[in-house]
Amino acid sequence: MPKIVDHDKQRQRVAEAALRVIQRGGLEKATVRNIAEEAGLSVGSLRHYFTSQAELLTFCMKLIIERIEERFSSLSLNGPVFEDVKQVLMQFLPMDEDRTMEMEVWMSFVAKALVYPELRIMTDHMYDGLTKACHYVVDTLVAHKLAKSELDLEYEKERIYALVDGLAIHHIMRPQQLATEKIERIIDQHLRSLCLDDKAMA
Amino acid sequence: MPKIVDHDKQRQRVAEAALRVIQRGGLEKATVRNIAEEAGLSVGSLRHYFTSQAELLTFCMKLIIERIEERFSSLSLNGPVFEDVKQVLMQFLPMDEDRTMEMEVWMSFVAKALVYPELRIMTDHMYDGLTKACHYVVDTLVAHKLAKSELDLEYEKERIYALVDGLAIHHIMRPQQLATEKIERIIDQHLRSLCLDDKAMA
Repeated sequence: MPKIVDHDKQRQRVAEAALRVIQRGGLEKATVRNIAEEAGLSVGSLRHYFTSQAELLTFCMKLIIERIEERFSSLSLNGPVFEDVKQVLMQFLPMDEDRTMEMEVWMSFVAKALVYPELRIMTDHMYDGLTKACHYVVDTLVAHKLAKSELDLEYEKERIYALVDGLAIHHIMRPQQLATEKIERIIDQHLRSLCLDDKAMA
Repeated sequence: MPKIVDHDKQRQRVAEAALRVIQRGGLEKATVRNIAEEAGLSVGSLRHYFTSQAELLTFCMKLIIERIEERFSSLSLNGPVFEDVKQVLMQFLPMDEDRTMEMEVWMSFVAKALVYPELRIMTDHMYDGLTKACHYVVDTLVAHKLAKSELDLEYEKERIYALVDGLAIHHIMRPQQLATEKIERIIDQHLRSLCLDDKAMA
């Protein structure tokens, strides 16, 4: 057993090194040599943990998704419903250094997944998560009778999804132009626009 | 003079070859050798037209921006105001094969610009264009008294910007999930929500 644990730990260590390399220099710097050096391993032992680049990158993407999932499970959703659903969406936005780093790296994976379909499993997984979150937000507002009755729910789910993704990219590309406070205000204002006037603060 | 024209034409030919290479295999396949082969040139003569990869990539990005600008200048905006502003936004969305190809390649550039600041001139240029378009849309709706009076204009401009970018990425990543008709419907519905009830169709 200890062997297996070590193996998993080493894979995690390699993936974390790879994420740092990608953040600094982009995916094209994610060579076996660079990652081995960053992880303090030999090229030979790195190949022992990951037999292909696709396997390593998939593992890196899995790591980012797991971090987001961890943040979700440690989220304490017991405040007013409106604040809770807002918190859910904020997990997908680059509100702090960790999330910004994750999203910068993720952007490279997304670009790569366009030409390497084997990476789509992970980008699909991430987008399924965001889709689920958007559905949760709209459905929760409806279930708690906060939402306006005339809402087109399918449209609102798509609109939130696009808004979250668009804000994330805008902030990553031009942080000065779209500060985190502004992101939060836009999400807040958008969610309010879906709610009955007197209900958002309830 | 003919020499200069040839030089420019050849640069364009090389950049077009580079765009095809990037679309097929991503930026990491955009090596001098691959691009020279695609353009039907020797590696030596390719180096004559572009002395560095950054120079070539910047030129490729400029080419995409020029294409968008060309589409803009051939746009006949003389319909109802509401349809005109919608058309402006649609230029930034992957509604046909050309625009989808451009956006897929652009995505790689965006990811690369995160780690290569010299490419930011072009991504900034593109984002300035999108910003300008969003301002134009909101300001035009206001100027023609189509917009609701209570709109927070700054917020609406940011929201359209994020929505357009988010929809574009969503479609590129998962075309089956977000078809072009759906994109158009979401943009239409969103713009309508900014307008006085009876004015959108005027």
